[in-house]
Amino acid sequence: MKKFSAEAFGTFFFTVAVGVTVDPVSVGFILIALTYLAADISTAHFNPAVSLASWIRNKINLSELVLYLSGQIAGAILGGLFVWWISTTTFLPQPEPATRTFQFIATELLFSFLFVLLFLHVMYPASSKRRSIYGFIIGIGFAACYLVSLNISGAGLNPAMNTGFAVLEYINSGHGLRDLPIYVLTPGIGAIAAAYAHRWIFRD
Amino acid sequence: MKKFSAEAFGTFFFTVAVGVTVDPVSVGFILIALTYLAADISTAHFNPAVSLASWIRNKINLSELVLYLSGQIAGAILGGLFVWWISTTTFLPQPEPATRTFQFIATELLFSFLFVLLFLHVMYPASSKRRSIYGFIIGIGFAACYLVSLNISGAGLNPAMNTGFAVLEYINSGHGLRDLPIYVLTPGIGAIAAAYAHRWIFRD
Amino acid sequence: MKKFSAEAFGTFFFTVAVGVTVDPVSVGFILIALTYLAADISTAHFNPAVSLASWIRNKINLSELVLYLSGQIAGAILGGLFVWWISTTTFLPQPEPATRTFQFIATELLFSFLFVLLFLHVMYPASSKRRSIYGFIIGIGFAACYLVSLNISGAGLNPAMNTGFAVLEYINSGHGLRDLPIYVLTPGIGAIAAAYAHRWIFRD
Amino acid sequence: MKKFSAEAFGTFFFTVAVGVTVDPVSVGFILIALTYLAADISTAHFNPAVSLASWIRNKINLSELVLYLSGQIAGAILGGLFVWWISTTTFLPQPEPATRTFQFIATELLFSFLFVLLFLHVMYPASSKRRSIYGFIIGIGFAACYLVSLNISGAGLNPAMNTGFAVLEYINSGHGLRDLPIYVLTPGIGAIAAAYAHRWIFRD
Repeated sequence: MKKFSAEAFGTFFFTVAVGVTVDPVSVGFILIALTYLAADISTAHFNPAVSLASWIRNKINLSELVLYLSGQIAGAILGGLFVWWISTTTFLPQPEPATRTFQFIATELLFSFLFVLLFLHVMYPASSKRRSIYGFIIGIGFAACYLVSLNISGAGLNPAMNTGFAVLEYINSGHGLRDLPIYVLTPGIGAIAAAYAHRWIFRD
Repeated sequence: MKKFSAEAFGTFFFTVAVGVTVDPVSVGFILIALTYLAADISTAHFNPAVSLASWIRNKINLSELVLYLSGQIAGAILGGLFVWWISTTTFLPQPEPATRTFQFIATELLFSFLFVLLFLHVMYPASSKRRSIYGFIIGIGFAACYLVSLNISGAGLNPAMNTGFAVLEYINSGHGLRDLPIYVLTPGIGAIAAAYAHRWIFRD
Repeated sequence: MKKFSAEAFGTFFFTVAVGVTVDPVSVGFILIALTYLAADISTAHFNPAVSLASWIRNKINLSELVLYLSGQIAGAILGGLFVWWISTTTFLPQPEPATRTFQFIATELLFSFLFVLLFLHVMYPASSKRRSIYGFIIGIGFAACYLVSLNISGAGLNPAMNTGFAVLEYINSGHGLRDLPIYVLTPGIGAIAAAYAHRWIFRD
Repeated sequence: MKKFSAEAFGTFFFTVAVGVTVDPVSVGFILIALTYLAADISTAHFNPAVSLASWIRNKINLSELVLYLSGQIAGAILGGLFVWWISTTTFLPQPEPATRTFQFIATELLFSFLFVLLFLHVMYPASSKRRSIYGFIIGIGFAACYLVSLNISGAGLNPAMNTGFAVLEYINSGHGLRDLPIYVLTPGIGAIAAAYAHRWIFRD
């Protein structure tokens, strides 16, 4: 229950920060705060791609995976609702108009892969958990991935967040689901690749 | 006396940074410096919401609470005076014109809650005090809350600072007290909620 | 093989970040993430100037030097290809039009020297490797060198990256090699100077 | 001799960063890099105000003070020469036109006081030197003081740097010395106040 709450809580604030600011540095900074708050409770995933990779690497079991994903989607929908209510309009991440589908997919894939690999490397080994710097590595690392991908793919990199925003956009305007499959599937594929790459590289 | 001075000193510089720059990154950076300076003297509150929550969690006693609040308000008024004197005009944080009252309240409440929870989690447990990184978590965490709330509620999040600015604005122009009750009460309520949430979550 | 892959991987993402954003803070942030990922595998060079200095200081041997440089150039060309493919145009770092050749050379020389000296000081001594902060020193240090030199020399500071971009520009447009000798040779000279300065200063 | 070189080296790069970018974040970042490079050699002062306070607190003796100041002024003049040569014009920090003399003095005094106090607190006690984070506290702390004072006093805060720039401006244009007494004397007075405040507060 605490893990579910921690994931919902963190994904809520993460989604609010994205929707209100669309600014990678603000989102990275809030992720730093949230990571330190939830690290000892749920390891601070806030992202289904991270949870999927953690499950593949045997860091959480299947029932925890379901719990984490539920918490993240609940938090993302509540966060999207808060953004809608505060700004009186829904927010929808979208790739730049000039971006073509394969560019969109490649960017989401590449930077989800990088972020999930960083997460597994930094947050799980006992030795690196003792490094008190871990929250800054995660927050700044995510800001970096967001900064590079924002003007190409609109910086999804988090299937829960995109699902929350897309569902609310659909309720509000009747559309908004067009890009959702790519925002959900490519980070998932990037996460699977990162999990296997992590096993091959670090073998901890 | 040292605790009073430390709180007045820190709240003074914090208020000056807000009034001169209105820039979340500048304010977060100055808070990092101030936190390292005052951490071993007064635990570097600089904010009545933080002091209230610390009192609820038995980290300071009632006479210390009064001392802390007095120091913070004295520092904020002096800081506001310095801003007035330097820029030859008073500065008054205000919610955006488009923001409605319940949006204003919700934003102040939510981000005061988040910041106070982070403060209690990072600054008080003996184990995390040993993490030399604590000042950066506090400063960057506050910058994050400020970045997200600035364009909605004008980013109060600190009743002492808002009291200082409002009193001076009132002296200067005869008004400026309209938003003060919300800037004072909602962070207080957020802090109370954070104190109880912290007890429930961490039970240290 | 892992060292080759780590250097290619890191230089790829580094080159992509430069080509997509041309923003020192984004590049510094991605370098922080990459440094933590590759530190225990290849000491996270991603830069022929760093590898050359590491070889002079006996941190890697000659066959490793060849391996590192190959990985870096491979990564840089792949990164440049990704930028080309994503933005449908090649990217070429260039000195500002007003910059004269000796100003260009002096800036590249000076900031390559500073960065390589910092790298040797921070990444190699066993005592400083234990400082978990090392990735932030490297990333922020590189961002600093990039911020100062960008509007003078176009901020090369990495011969592999510049080679990758120049080769692709040449393939795309038939020119782009004019500044390459300076972008390759001056960081090399800066690195040699840094290696000898480091030996003289720290004698570890 | 190493201490002299380290102070000249650091003040050179510090001055170049100020003159080329006039950007507090760039200057703070370069100060982080320089602080880690020189901390174990000269404690990384790069600023006569810091050296003066260190002498009052018995951290350096009088002949070291002279050595430090000489290195800093030599580095600042060389740095100013480099800026002149690179940008083909001299750079001169100045208070904003609207700033009146007592506002200029108060701002320089206050933020020199804050920075020197932070420096003494962070860089000298053996216990805090072991905190590997010290270079970030100094660099970000200086960036904070610079950010707040830049639009009032032009952010001197370093008598060596201002002397270097003013001397070169005078050589180039025949004027530029008007603000120099304030840029030199007020940080000195702020440093003296910080040294005594530090003794009273921390008594280490």
